[in-house]
Amino acid sequence: MALGKNYDGQDCSLAKALEVLGERWTLLVVRDAMYGVRRFGDFQAHLDIPRAVLSQRLAALVTAGVLERRRYQDAPPRDEYVLTPMGRELWLPVLALAQWGERNLAAHGPRRLYHHVACGTPLDRQSACATCGRSVPLEEVEVRPGPGLRHDTREDLVSLALRTPHRMLDPIS
Amino acid sequence: MALGKNYDGQDCSLAKALEVLGERWTLLVVRDAMYGVRRFGDFQAHLDIPRAVLSQRLAALVTAGVLERRRYQDAPPRDEYVLTPMGRELWLPVLALAQWGERNLAAHGPRRLYHHVACGTPLDRQSACATCGRSVPLEEVEVRPGPGLRHDTREDLVSLALRTPHRMLDPIS
Repeated sequence: MALGKNYDGQDCSLAKALEVLGERWTLLVVRDAMYGVRRFGDFQAHLDIPRAVLSQRLAALVTAGVLERRRYQDAPPRDEYVLTPMGRELWLPVLALAQWGERNLAAHGPRRLYHHVACGTPLDRQSACATCGRSVPLEEVEVRPGPGLRHDTREDLVSLALRTPHRMLDPIS
Repeated sequence: MALGKNYDGQDCSLAKALEVLGERWTLLVVRDAMYGVRRFGDFQAHLDIPRAVLSQRLAALVTAGVLERRRYQDAPPRDEYVLTPMGRELWLPVLALAQWGERNLAAHGPRRLYHHVACGTPLDRQSACATCGRSVPLEEVEVRPGPGLRHDTREDLVSLALRTPHRMLDPIS
């Protein structure tokens, strides 16, 4: 049965957010952009999905204002995808969902740990730093490998970059 | 092209969460359960989706441990669906997503306002109460109609119950 992408009649803010983010893979594309992935081939290698699906998801996120498409090379023409301020604001829901998954569904402990880059303090599930007493935005977060990562055998560029501490949004390419 | 529900090879906590929550309508079922909807017919009237889709989503949420199925009547047998503690913990990601949608996508202002039931203070997007200085769990949240709701013309039981202040999880039926 056809279930379109929109939620007509569900005019609530959650439904509106899911119209932008609710398709399969979309939030994982956003997650990778938060890590600093910018180029089509790097998204593709890390997500391991068909190129047509990735193209559609990236285009939809650009249309929605979550990603911005930027030319980084002219001959041959090549674009990269960077989170807009509206996209970076997705850090809170992405972190909240990931932390829920981690507490309830992760078999081998956390794969990724999030710390405040200024003081090294681990962030809580609302991205608050207990040392600095404030909520930490994506720009100030460092991701570090957690104990669950010891089972990781992936060799793509993104997986390798995240085996050591990495500041969120720093380009991976 | 077939894109199954799982994210094999994406062994991150966000992907794990999306394996449980990422299908269409699933998070809106969870949202309704947070409002206090418990019965199949009430979910169906508010979500306005095919019965087969709703059945599948409820069954999957029970299997995942997000909802618990409880017999409330024996003749004829009738069950209701209630959030488990693990399901109630979804309040933070659901609120974060809804608030992101509200700030970035809502045309007529917020439809729902969330307040701390103990003191009446509006909650921030991380469910913190500035008056009490702490994070407020779902059990202590009151939902109130916001300015965006003036365009609402729906007459189902859930829509009507949410036109006046309503404590989250208080049964709607």
